[in-house]
Amino acid sequence: MSVTAPKGFRAAGVVAGIKSTGKRDVALVVNDGPSAAAAAVFTGNRCKANPIIWSQQVIADGTVSAIVLNSGGANCYTGSFGFQTTHLTAEAVGEALGISAGDVLVCSTGLIGTGDQTFRDAVVGGAKEAARTLAASEDAGVEASEAIMTTDSRAKRVVREGVGYTIGAMAKGAGMLAPGLATMLVVITTDADLESPALDAALRASTRTTFDRLDSDGCMSTNDQVTLLASGASGVTPDVVEFTALLTDVCADLARQLQQDAEGASHDVTITTVGAVTEQDAEDVSRAVSRSNLFKAAIFGNDPNWGRVLAAAGTTQAEFDPQALDVTINGVMVCKAGTPHEPVDRVDLTPRDTLVVIDLHAGEAEATILTNDLTHDYVHENSAYSS
Amino acid sequence: MSVTAPKGFRAAGVVAGIKSTGKRDVALVVNDGPSAAAAAVFTGNRCKANPIIWSQQVIADGTVSAIVLNSGGANCYTGSFGFQTTHLTAEAVGEALGISAGDVLVCSTGLIGTGDQTFRDAVVGGAKEAARTLAASEDAGVEASEAIMTTDSRAKRVVREGVGYTIGAMAKGAGMLAPGLATMLVVITTDADLESPALDAALRASTRTTFDRLDSDGCMSTNDQVTLLASGASGVTPDVVEFTALLTDVCADLARQLQQDAEGASHDVTITTVGAVTEQDAEDVSRAVSRSNLFKAAIFGNDPNWGRVLAAAGTTQAEFDPQALDVTINGVMVCKAGTPHEPVDRVDLTPRDTLVVIDLHAGEAEATILTNDLTHDYVHENSAYSS
Repeated sequence: MSVTAPKGFRAAGVVAGIKSTGKRDVALVVNDGPSAAAAAVFTGNRCKANPIIWSQQVIADGTVSAIVLNSGGANCYTGSFGFQTTHLTAEAVGEALGISAGDVLVCSTGLIGTGDQTFRDAVVGGAKEAARTLAASEDAGVEASEAIMTTDSRAKRVVREGVGYTIGAMAKGAGMLAPGLATMLVVITTDADLESPALDAALRASTRTTFDRLDSDGCMSTNDQVTLLASGASGVTPDVVEFTALLTDVCADLARQLQQDAEGASHDVTITTVGAVTEQDAEDVSRAVSRSNLFKAAIFGNDPNWGRVLAAAGTTQAEFDPQALDVTINGVMVCKAGTPHEPVDRVDLTPRDTLVVIDLHAGEAEATILTNDLTHDYVHENSAYSS
Repeated sequence: MSVTAPKGFRAAGVVAGIKSTGKRDVALVVNDGPSAAAAAVFTGNRCKANPIIWSQQVIADGTVSAIVLNSGGANCYTGSFGFQTTHLTAEAVGEALGISAGDVLVCSTGLIGTGDQTFRDAVVGGAKEAARTLAASEDAGVEASEAIMTTDSRAKRVVREGVGYTIGAMAKGAGMLAPGLATMLVVITTDADLESPALDAALRASTRTTFDRLDSDGCMSTNDQVTLLASGASGVTPDVVEFTALLTDVCADLARQLQQDAEGASHDVTITTVGAVTEQDAEDVSRAVSRSNLFKAAIFGNDPNWGRVLAAAGTTQAEFDPQALDVTINGVMVCKAGTPHEPVDRVDLTPRDTLVVIDLHAGEAEATILTNDLTHDYVHENSAYSS
């Protein structure tokens, strides 16, 4: 189901010829209302793709009628020609649906620098074709989710039911996952009736502790966008706190799916820092560990190398006494108060799920970062990506 | 030659039994004076090994008579027992040489958490043995440089002649190379006659643009120390500016040797950012690129993926217009003013030496970071390190 599960939405996923594999590569999601309220968050990267520059203008008034997405080319660093391609894509959708191009968000994903005339012809043609094949069916939602895949091994979808309303979503992403979002396109639909400011607050609260804490490889994308569209078709205006909780659940589910499909990974590593003075301190420590190539390579080799956890923690400004730290890996406390504790050979790192807990013994706050190990396959997939 | 090249120094490198391979693992360098002036810089990591905590106290008065170094164990996160081991090692050297333990620096390198009774017995015994075999010969300098190797494939040494004085040095390091030094032990000797404050200023100026700009894998060690010992035996007090230039040359040579021996690397990548408003901006951009696993994996695959260069630059706060950036890889300008320029297939990435130049078109400052690519062998070596 995904994006077509809530009332008021139609979707399509078509083969536009951008991908050399002949797979679906253009998706369209349309909000038929009665409301067209929307919110979006964008990559924190200063080097932004043309669709990001376009979409940041479109979302400014909080009104969006459709979102068109392509895989197979990022349309980033393609100059003014590339920006015109984004504009033409939005216009093609607007014309086909009888709406303003200024209410059409555009997302692209793929190789940076891809955006020539061939790409333009394919993506504009695909947008028109998608508009012709829109449907509110389950299949349409599935096909849209397939059309945004790049190196993803499977499509990511989720549906959650609230009290009288529904949230549906699709996501793509498999690596280059880092804070401020990363190589991640997410479309979330709901038939709840909420205004744009409420949607914006709910979306920012939800992404802060989910997508923003997924840090697969420390690399931030130029193209990320997480979009929330609300049709109001259920007639239900939920309590914002309750809606935010359900939305956070949707985002957390997708973030976990993204982690589990990260390029070449053999472990899904959850790094939780507890006993911090502030949540930011806890996040900083977890993130520093998640970015240590040495730690990540050790996990790949089933080696519970806790020294590399502490070496990474020591690079942060978080408040703690370096001699007070505990490190627990998969339930075995291998380091207590800064000294070796239980034998490392008690740690079983053969399961894919890996849990590292760092106790700073400095306060009550905690935070978790989701990451992956560093593997031969990661190196292989990312050395062959554009060739 | 290395550390025994300047007058007034003796050295030794012995087999103490810390390394299971039976190779040399304890080195000792002694300054016979007449001066005992010294300076040292230490890892910026807050999680420091016991020898770092000890050595920071020893260097406080600017006087050092000897430095003892071991490979095969980091003596980091080994508790008060580990600190006592460091203390006992310095005392063993002091007793053997008739000097104060408080004038003996200690360095250790190897696996974090290694520092039990067996380690203590070996390192203290090795220190005594080294004191018995001290010599001012070329061989002694070579053996000392071999005794500090860990995963290094070759010992690193350099000698430079000033006007009437000499600088000699040895280094170890092969990965975990990052700012604030990293898994790097360096001992530099000179027979120039300079006081500790002048040595300190010269050393900090030299490391700032050499060792601190070597960023092989973004990981900062717990054990790094770069030490400069001056015997004054030449009777020459050089101009400080001239001395600093020669010392910088020594450090740059060793930094390059460390880069060329980085664990598992197949490319030595020089990342130069030009056209920056400040040197710090230039350094920030070069360092961000040097830490992008995606970029580093692409270089391993001989793929001149300039999009990953820009995506990394965009994560910094450096002053530039994202649409004004040029990227040149091995002499081919693949991106000009933020758009594709020369065809990427003109870039030859088969040589090990790789040069990436990013022009921010914002000012006149520039800075270079030395890094390596991300390879299968890096992952392999670092997943098997402690097992």
